[in-house]
Amino acid sequence: INQGFPEVIFGLGKRPEQTAAIFERLTKTGLPVLATRCTAEVYGAVKSKVPEAVFHDLAQAVTLRVSEENEHPLGTIAVVTAGTADLPVAEEAAVSALAMGCRVKRIFDVGVAGLHRLLSKREELSEAQVIIVIAGMEGALASVVAGMVDIPVVAVPTSIGYGANFGGLSALLGMLNSCALGVGVVNIDNGFGAAALAATIVRSGRRDIGRSQDV
Amino acid sequence: INQGFPEVIFGLGKRPEQTAAIFERLTKTGLPVLATRCTAEVYGAVKSKVPEAVFHDLAQAVTLRVSEENEHPLGTIAVVTAGTADLPVAEEAAVSALAMGCRVKRIFDVGVAGLHRLLSKREELSEAQVIIVIAGMEGALASVVAGMVDIPVVAVPTSIGYGANFGGLSALLGMLNSCALGVGVVNIDNGFGAAALAATIVRSGRRDIGRSQDV
Amino acid sequence: INQGFPEVIFGLGKRPEQTAAIFERLTKTGLPVLATRCTAEVYGAVKSKVPEAVFHDLAQAVTLRVSEENEHPLGTIAVVTAGTADLPVAEEAAVSALAMGCRVKRIFDVGVAGLHRLLSKREELSEAQVIIVIAGMEGALASVVAGMVDIPVVAVPTSIGYGANFGGLSALLGMLNSCALGVGVVNIDNGFGAAALAATIVRSGRRDIGRSQDV
Amino acid sequence: INQGFPEVIFGLGKRPEQTAAIFERLTKTGLPVLATRCTAEVYGAVKSKVPEAVFHDLAQAVTLRVSEENEHPLGTIAVVTAGTADLPVAEEAAVSALAMGCRVKRIFDVGVAGLHRLLSKREELSEAQVIIVIAGMEGALASVVAGMVDIPVVAVPTSIGYGANFGGLSALLGMLNSCALGVGVVNIDNGFGAAALAATIVRSGRRDIGRSQDV
Amino acid sequence: INQGFPEVIFGLGKRPEQTAAIFERLTKTGLPVLATRCTAEVYGAVKSKVPEAVFHDLAQAVTLRVSEENEHPLGTIAVVTAGTADLPVAEEAAVSALAMGCRVKRIFDVGVAGLHRLLSKREELSEAQVIIVIAGMEGALASVVAGMVDIPVVAVPTSIGYGANFGGLSALLGMLNSCALGVGVVNIDNGFGAAALAATIVRSGRRDIGRSQDV
Amino acid sequence: INQGFPEVIFGLGKRPEQTAAIFERLTKTGLPVLATRCTAEVYGAVKSKVPEAVFHDLAQAVTLRVSEENEHPLGTIAVVTAGTADLPVAEEAAVSALAMGCRVKRIFDVGVAGLHRLLSKREELSEAQVIIVIAGMEGALASVVAGMVDIPVVAVPTSIGYGANFGGLSALLGMLNSCALGVGVVNIDNGFGAAALAATIVRSGRRDIGRSQDV
Amino acid sequence: INQGFPEVIFGLGKRPEQTAAIFERLTKTGLPVLATRCTAEVYGAVKSKVPEAVFHDLAQAVTLRVSEENEHPLGTIAVVTAGTADLPVAEEAAVSALAMGCRVKRIFDVGVAGLHRLLSKREELSEAQVIIVIAGMEGALASVVAGMVDIPVVAVPTSIGYGANFGGLSALLGMLNSCALGVGVVNIDNGFGAAALAATIVRSGRRDIGRSQDV
Amino acid sequence: INQGFPEVIFGLGKRPEQTAAIFERLTKTGLPVLATRCTAEVYGAVKSKVPEAVFHDLAQAVTLRVSEENEHPLGTIAVVTAGTADLPVAEEAAVSALAMGCRVKRIFDVGVAGLHRLLSKREELSEAQVIIVIAGMEGALASVVAGMVDIPVVAVPTSIGYGANFGGLSALLGMLNSCALGVGVVNIDNGFGAAALAATIVRSGRRDIGRSQDV
Ligand SMILES: Nc1ncnc2c1ncn2[C@@H]1O[C@H](COP(=O)(O)O)[C@@H](O)[C@H]1O
Ligand SMILES: Nc1ncnc2c1ncn2[C@@H]1O[C@H](COP(=O)(O)O)[C@@H](O)[C@H]1O
Ligand SMILES: Nc1ncnc2c1ncn2[C@@H]1O[C@H](COP(=O)(O)O)[C@@H](O)[C@H]1O
Ligand SMILES: Nc1ncnc2c1ncn2[C@@H]1O[C@H](COP(=O)(O)O)[C@@H](O)[C@H]1O
Ligand SMILES: [Mg+2]
Ligand SMILES: [Mg+2]
Ligand SMILES: [Mg+2]
Ligand SMILES: [Mg+2]
Ligand SMILES: [Mg+2]
Ligand SMILES: [Mg+2]
Ligand SMILES: [Mg+2]
Ligand SMILES: [Mg+2]
Repeated sequence: INQGFPEVIFGLGKRPEQTAAIFERLTKTGLPVLATRCTAEVYGAVKSKVPEAVFHDLAQAVTLRVSEENEHPLGTIAVVTAGTADLPVAEEAAVSALAMGCRVKRIFDVGVAGLHRLLSKREELSEAQVIIVIAGMEGALASVVAGMVDIPVVAVPTSIGYGANFGGLSALLGMLNSCALGVGVVNIDNGFGAAALAATIVRSGRRDIGRSQDV
Repeated sequence: INQGFPEVIFGLGKRPEQTAAIFERLTKTGLPVLATRCTAEVYGAVKSKVPEAVFHDLAQAVTLRVSEENEHPLGTIAVVTAGTADLPVAEEAAVSALAMGCRVKRIFDVGVAGLHRLLSKREELSEAQVIIVIAGMEGALASVVAGMVDIPVVAVPTSIGYGANFGGLSALLGMLNSCALGVGVVNIDNGFGAAALAATIVRSGRRDIGRSQDV
Repeated sequence: INQGFPEVIFGLGKRPEQTAAIFERLTKTGLPVLATRCTAEVYGAVKSKVPEAVFHDLAQAVTLRVSEENEHPLGTIAVVTAGTADLPVAEEAAVSALAMGCRVKRIFDVGVAGLHRLLSKREELSEAQVIIVIAGMEGALASVVAGMVDIPVVAVPTSIGYGANFGGLSALLGMLNSCALGVGVVNIDNGFGAAALAATIVRSGRRDIGRSQDV
Repeated sequence: INQGFPEVIFGLGKRPEQTAAIFERLTKTGLPVLATRCTAEVYGAVKSKVPEAVFHDLAQAVTLRVSEENEHPLGTIAVVTAGTADLPVAEEAAVSALAMGCRVKRIFDVGVAGLHRLLSKREELSEAQVIIVIAGMEGALASVVAGMVDIPVVAVPTSIGYGANFGGLSALLGMLNSCALGVGVVNIDNGFGAAALAATIVRSGRRDIGRSQDV
Repeated sequence: INQGFPEVIFGLGKRPEQTAAIFERLTKTGLPVLATRCTAEVYGAVKSKVPEAVFHDLAQAVTLRVSEENEHPLGTIAVVTAGTADLPVAEEAAVSALAMGCRVKRIFDVGVAGLHRLLSKREELSEAQVIIVIAGMEGALASVVAGMVDIPVVAVPTSIGYGANFGGLSALLGMLNSCALGVGVVNIDNGFGAAALAATIVRSGRRDIGRSQDV
Repeated sequence: INQGFPEVIFGLGKRPEQTAAIFERLTKTGLPVLATRCTAEVYGAVKSKVPEAVFHDLAQAVTLRVSEENEHPLGTIAVVTAGTADLPVAEEAAVSALAMGCRVKRIFDVGVAGLHRLLSKREELSEAQVIIVIAGMEGALASVVAGMVDIPVVAVPTSIGYGANFGGLSALLGMLNSCALGVGVVNIDNGFGAAALAATIVRSGRRDIGRSQDV
Repeated sequence: INQGFPEVIFGLGKRPEQTAAIFERLTKTGLPVLATRCTAEVYGAVKSKVPEAVFHDLAQAVTLRVSEENEHPLGTIAVVTAGTADLPVAEEAAVSALAMGCRVKRIFDVGVAGLHRLLSKREELSEAQVIIVIAGMEGALASVVAGMVDIPVVAVPTSIGYGANFGGLSALLGMLNSCALGVGVVNIDNGFGAAALAATIVRSGRRDIGRSQDV
Repeated sequence: INQGFPEVIFGLGKRPEQTAAIFERLTKTGLPVLATRCTAEVYGAVKSKVPEAVFHDLAQAVTLRVSEENEHPLGTIAVVTAGTADLPVAEEAAVSALAMGCRVKRIFDVGVAGLHRLLSKREELSEAQVIIVIAGMEGALASVVAGMVDIPVVAVPTSIGYGANFGGLSALLGMLNSCALGVGVVNIDNGFGAAALAATIVRSGRRDIGRSQDV
């Protein structure tokens, strides 16, 4: 089981060469490497130093030793989105969760304006240890999903929208005021942070398995 | 058909005697009379002048010539709430809609944390000309209802909640950013205003009946 | 009567090819197609796949099977603006309303700083089933129009202005606090959403015609 | 001509005895005395020391040597309100303007939801040197009045309303973003400050009379 | 193992008799009963109907069939506070977690202005499956705790403070922007919601034990 | 005396050709023409149609028939700034005031961090009929100037600054809460609006001269 | 020299008995004791246990072993206020500074609307090691004082005012955006925190005296 | 000892030639010169006029007669940062402090998510007269540092982050609400202002040395 946490670089505000240099250095730890908030240009700089680095276009992430399928996953994280505009954040969450050793199940485009699509996914949702719900605008999806299952929901408001969404404030406040139980909120657009919380929850559960088996 | 709009008094900030005096004067118009935002004390003052005035405890409203059933209603308005805390606003809307000549169908406590209750009301919802959705906290109910039917939704955010609901801001922003179509928003806690918009919509539809029949 | 709702694409954040591909696919439904928030560049991409697509420059919209005049319109929607800067939002509303099968009456540049222009339009306003009022800055036009007629007003605050308009907040709050009756508010700059609410109201009225004729 | 500015006490946060003591002291200057934000209880304390002090119930003000009619007024200030709830602020403005030596013309309850009342006052408005417009909710009255006349408008937003008026923010932003020319804004509910600005404008005009006559 | 979730009543805005009546009814389910946001007066009303109900003064909660020690706890939740003023929220969380079948470890008054106290608790912290961190003012405690351990942190901002804490906004924003990994945020002062999320995490971990043992 | 108000074009959001076309049309009225918020590129477009149009680089304004000195000025407006960064707004105000027939006295760079410069200008200030005070950051200059003289002050907050100035909010709130009497506030960066209010005040004073001379 | 820091109790939200009990316990340390945010009722409770405790009415503080004059003061702190309404915060600062071993010089009621009063205090100001400036409304006093002297200014915004002061936000933003150098800001109404910062500065200076004398 | 304050230019919003011209002029005073908020392009313009000017890339500052080591420093200022993204603000503070005659000790990347790094710096921190703490996101570092030492802390919130950091608001509010004593806050990203306050504190201490030695 891959219990190790990846090495992580936060690409925002770093110059391509800076990110590339750190990436190359972290390569030597033998751990998976994850760089978030990277443009294609940054990827170019990384690739020239670490040719096997992989670019995740939608996620704006560069990885090494991260594959879509973990052989011995820590557990399963469902990544659920309301609309297509939430995809970049969702993919940042998905790639990060993979880098942290989890299996990822993507359930996209199940926003509350068309409930039937979401309702048809109840079983799939039930198989996850943690559900990451990603939604902009009014962020209602988090409440509806948390009402459907008895699994921890990590809610990520996105800045998708305009006008009175005030850069994600509408979804953020909506999720903080969720009338459903079992919802923890992270920062607007923070797909990486959601994955980190979800993976910590999954790991916390596994560790307890060890303990209770000891007993 | 009672097409007349009632005489309306906004009780907030008026002293009991003031409201009572205006109420008595309006009594003479022969129209229904509606006073909103009135405490039991205000009702006492009104009653001593207009003994047949009726108090609506939950709605905090005093009425005259308003009955739960209009004989020839203009149309049907559904009043839908998420939780019990939204009742005062819902009743202000219901009493106001009755005073404006509509039939009112109350569908209460169908919040999104327990979708099954709401889903079982689809048919009832479909019979209304306008649906008033009243919800606090994240206000997600407006989006979910608007996604279920093809009927105009008047959304009323309520100040129910605490902390990051900031006096109703969370529900207000949620409703303004609704991902569902056909939602018009009124001020926080404004049950009366929602009824006025709903009744105007119903009236506008009826007037057109006349026209198209002329043709 | 064209009761069908058009197929709609929200262009914001989509790449030209993406929008063009979806547009082409939706073409096959036979319904009107409407893509909002599209630049001239996006239109280029659409046109190369669907040559009969039409670009609405001011509205930043691309349409198919949408004409300025519907032969059997569902009803009439007036689109009213305060100033020229509100035109893009107004045209998004107008094109959307046409795509939804309504007749559109444009009443532009009747802001409250020069009341005479607005007052001279009272009759024209009275002929609509719904009035969409589009205004930035203080958004006072919605109140004044709603005070003049007894027709549902859909109010669209715009982000027009600077400084203390805080991206449309001033007009939004103004419209939510309207002292006139019969006003429902949609998101800042949301011309499309206003048209959808207006068309839903018009449709709701027509459906009732059917019913009352049944009786 | 009474050109002197009155002695002023700001009653908010002062104890009755404190206000009474200052009031008594200022009595000796021979100037008019004005204490704002005073309850009936404060007036009791003042009266026991200065029996000829007058209480203005609505304005919550106590005055000495201030009468409703100035014999040689500096000029005329119109005080215009949207609704009855704005009366306390309007009366604070009116009493303050009287204390500053102006003639006051009250034009109340001419809110924009019923334009005819306002339009019928055009001539009266034109006779003032300055117009103080007092309005809560969306504060649209300031724009409409300023659009009707070519006279300086001092706009006072009031905290009248609830929900999304956020303590007067809606009216404040509306007035700051007025599309009409010639509007200067003071703090929410600041009737006294509005009168002070208006009186300063009137005085500034009179002083110039002197000058131009010198020439 | 008590896997059942208690019956819960949200006392805020309900009258004593209402809460007492619901409490009595829920008593019949045989499950634990928890009523939050209850004053001593409410407790009086409940007690007269359900004499064995217990009042938790600090937590402002009334419970039935909830004891400080669960015999077969689902898991252990640490409740950590910065200062004494956070106690009411902490006790709401603790009592709620007990009602949900968890063991609770209280670690109080370990705010970041005196790090030594907190650092001496590292081992105790490590024994929990979930840590609830409750802090007002700048809310820094959540970041520091999350940096010390690899356990999910549920962060509860409190409204403790004044001035620029704006009712808990400072702690809320601080926690949402935590630079440490593994932090999920709930609403301001929401001790109950934090317990619900923590218990859901613990339960999710246990369920997986079952699964992995099946394999 | 030039009592006429200029023709005004608000350039923001208009394309160069649009502004140029309107400018050319207004030229025919014979009145002064003023276009604000115009770039050098817009000026190029105007000039090609109206060669005698003048560009005011700092003010970002284009004018016709406006000169630095009015032969028979309506009155004198002082334009006072705190720092060099406020110059663009100050020049917009100055050019606008000139276009409205006033004489303009510029008193620049007299911010409150160096009081001596400001104190040395008292006499100059006293010669104006109205003082426009333009300041960003904390906006304290308006209070200090209003405390020095008994002349109406039109306060213009500017968006100069960064961080916690929140786009001019700090100066705006500062000016609205001025502890000095006689201050009216206009929108952030609204140099033109300040000039319009100032000119209206000056005109109102002059008109009264006529009246009192009639008497 | 009294270098010791007092024992401090924050009275807000504590019950009288709680504060009294802590006060009594701290008495035993032999250090000065300071309890802030205490009502007269709290003082009663303290006094019944510690009869020599002293109540500072304006400051709402209870002290022990704190006298108006320190025999060997650490240094001098000037406490400067704009208006009388700022007195409670100023006295909290003054009493706290005394408890911390400093000499306090009070310079009250020198707000910027009447500059002469402030200018006459320049010499007195220059004798302090730190100046605490306390002001509500627009908070301009901090900038003006910091511009007059080359001494560190600790700025305390107060919540004095109404309307657009938004609970002290106007003064807070004003002080954070001060155009003068050498200003550090503390929380709204935080007289105690200001004294703590000022005393830390004074102590830091003294310690360095020791050091440089060592050299 | 260099007690002189440098000449300072605020580069933001000035054109390269403007800054270069002022820089050249200030060169003649013989004092150190500091220009903040300058791009490499601005530096080019300055250098062509003042060849010995030095560019500080990270700080975005241009200096003359400022060296990393002051021979007779006024005192020592520690500049402490949470993360690498805070470096530009930290370097603006460091370069400014050097220009003001202080010695600077940089302690970077000691954010609270990894406390060990920070704890290992306690001694280094203790040697400073003032500590400037620079942190974005939740800004918790200021509280933790202030809790570790008894030295004045100047806290600089940075705009580093995204989403709910709202341009630095989260760190700003966190620092203003610090539960630790001895913290003064400056504007978001204001490294220069922090240095100015720190240098004023250091100077104030030295001046007192003189005084007490005089005694
Ligand atoms: N997308 C992201 N959003 C927020 N934090 C991130 C993100 N990606 C990485 N991080 C954090 O940034 C840290 C690395 O920052 P740095 O050392 O500046 O590259 C990691 O340890 C993560 O905690
Ligand atoms: N609950 C309410 N919320 C908002 N506006 C109301 C409410 N009730 C009545 N009104 C409005 O207040 C007007 C009467 O105000 P007034 O003349 O002050 O009694 C009515 O015509 C309604 O438009
Ligand atoms: N209603 C009011 N709102 C704002 N400021 C006021 C008001 N009434 C009086 N003032 C101001 O308060 C000053 C007196 O304050 P004080 O010395 O505290 O009584 C006067 O000179 C006025 O400038
Ligand atoms: N980075 C900065 N942030 C805030 N204020 C600054 C900064 N750099 C310089 N200043 C201030 O700006 C003044 C110079 O402004 P100016 O005359 O416009 O160049 C200096 O005296 C400083 O007080
Ligand atoms: Mg659930
Ligand atoms: Mg629908
Ligand atoms: Mg109407
Ligand atoms: Mg006008
Ligand atoms: Mg951790
Ligand atoms: Mg003055
Ligand atoms: Mg200074
Ligand atoms: Mg300390």
